[in-house]
Amino acid sequence: MSLISLGTVALDNIKTPAGTKKALLGGSASHFAMSARFFTKVYLVSIIGEDFPKQHVQLLKRKGINLTSVVKREGKTFQWDGKYDAEDMNCAITLDTELGVLLSYSPQVASSQRNIPNVFLANFDPDTQMEFLGLLGKPKFIGLDSMNLWIDLKKKSLVKLLKKVDLFVANDGEARALTGESNLIKAARVLESMGPKFVVVKKGEHGMLFTTKKFMFSFPAYPVENVIDPTGAGDTFAGGLMGYLSKSGKINETTFRKAAIYATTLASFNVEGFGMAKTASLTLTQVNARMKKFVGFIKP
Amino acid sequence: MSLISLGTVALDNIKTPAGTKKALLGGSASHFAMSARFFTKVYLVSIIGEDFPKQHVQLLKRKGINLTSVVKREGKTFQWDGKYDAEDMNCAITLDTELGVLLSYSPQVASSQRNIPNVFLANFDPDTQMEFLGLLGKPKFIGLDSMNLWIDLKKKSLVKLLKKVDLFVANDGEARALTGESNLIKAARVLESMGPKFVVVKKGEHGMLFTTKKFMFSFPAYPVENVIDPTGAGDTFAGGLMGYLSKSGKINETTFRKAAIYATTLASFNVEGFGMAKTASLTLTQVNARMKKFVGFIKP
Repeated sequence: MSLISLGTVALDNIKTPAGTKKALLGGSASHFAMSARFFTKVYLVSIIGEDFPKQHVQLLKRKGINLTSVVKREGKTFQWDGKYDAEDMNCAITLDTELGVLLSYSPQVASSQRNIPNVFLANFDPDTQMEFLGLLGKPKFIGLDSMNLWIDLKKKSLVKLLKKVDLFVANDGEARALTGESNLIKAARVLESMGPKFVVVKKGEHGMLFTTKKFMFSFPAYPVENVIDPTGAGDTFAGGLMGYLSKSGKINETTFRKAAIYATTLASFNVEGFGMAKTASLTLTQVNARMKKFVGFIKP
Repeated sequence: MSLISLGTVALDNIKTPAGTKKALLGGSASHFAMSARFFTKVYLVSIIGEDFPKQHVQLLKRKGINLTSVVKREGKTFQWDGKYDAEDMNCAITLDTELGVLLSYSPQVASSQRNIPNVFLANFDPDTQMEFLGLLGKPKFIGLDSMNLWIDLKKKSLVKLLKKVDLFVANDGEARALTGESNLIKAARVLESMGPKFVVVKKGEHGMLFTTKKFMFSFPAYPVENVIDPTGAGDTFAGGLMGYLSKSGKINETTFRKAAIYATTLASFNVEGFGMAKTASLTLTQVNARMKKFVGFIKP
């Protein structure tokens, strides 16, 4: 079953111990789609500016990602400048953000896309995420991602949104900030009580935790020795998760475990290159090969 | 096969968000032995002072732990005062340390215990650990634990010791400090190159990583919602690991994985009570029941 996702499409300027890169294709929706495309047809909903490079559009299209609901407006594409220090590659440091066309964005969805059964709200202003949901029919399954910025600035909107979604994907810092619980199991339980039936806590290099009332599981991360650029790893994870769930069409423990294994595998490729250097050139055969190695790594 | 361990026996004064406790039975060797006892006969090598409470001795003996090589000397038992803050239960804050009888300790091992095949050097001064090894015959398998204090104060001695052991158990901070590598996989590889064929990196609430040239694996921690006191969790982990390996008598991937699962399970009980409140009253049946739940939690 197909999958529609609202999120940002960005130009990223990134500095890591491995080097500096300018105007990389980035943004929550781009990374999400580049990962979910392995499993299902992905429809992207976002906005770009006049400066957005043609080759980025061509790349996304070539990978089978539908851009009908990506509007182009006068002004500059959303730009993120960030860096990572060698001591803590888990932690992105924002140097500058230029919102550009995001400032006046109101989501637009092609009418043919309004009844797509699986929906993912990649990181974005929660009011925009809510507005987007209002444009859709009655989705079968809705996933949500957010970030600390929105927990700080728009907690009320985010809390409202949580009641409308089936799955919430948060990193450990966000889960703690949103619930006030330092213990991640407790934090996940509180998040469940706020609305979503399924909660995933992403822990960067330490892997992930999945909770729901009836079962829980946890996997470490795939062991990556040379982390080049972690930007988009969380979105790539979410893309693998939602992509596999959409493909399988089933929401149960077996599919969630398999989806989380694919999600972890894809995120491990993402951190091995700048921007989408690795994930854009991957084949499903390569993904499956590493997925098998990962299963060997984590099996009891 | 039996197991001999040098380490500290201490009186712990501990403050955590769950409360304050005085003169708890603690120390690296005590926690280690209380965990390893589920699998094999454990011989403890340590020193206590005149103030050491009889009921602590009785408890250790009742649990089948051999204390023939624990000497009692004039003076005070080693005492550790520490606390944990709610925001980071992974991180012990030392408030005070009173070395007491440890100051002039030279290990003494009953002659009948010098050829015990499995040896664990629980956290202690690396010079004392080396001295202890000199008293033994030719052990089949030697495991080592240490702490940041010794990496700071006696790195040379620790590096020398690493060449003599088969297994090194370090927490993430220690692995990083000793190697200068922030990536834990790389850090583990560097540790291997320093001597031990097998390296375990303990990551507290995030579980563990095992590496050796031919295979690697990683497990998350067992999900504990109410962490009462993490003191001794690492020693308890090491006790489960070495205890199971000693029992099985085999050093291969299957036994290491099983040993790590038991180690993780036992550590999860340890953090659920002050000192040894939980681990001392446990039965192997309870351990096995949780071990099965843990396998369900981590299975791919």
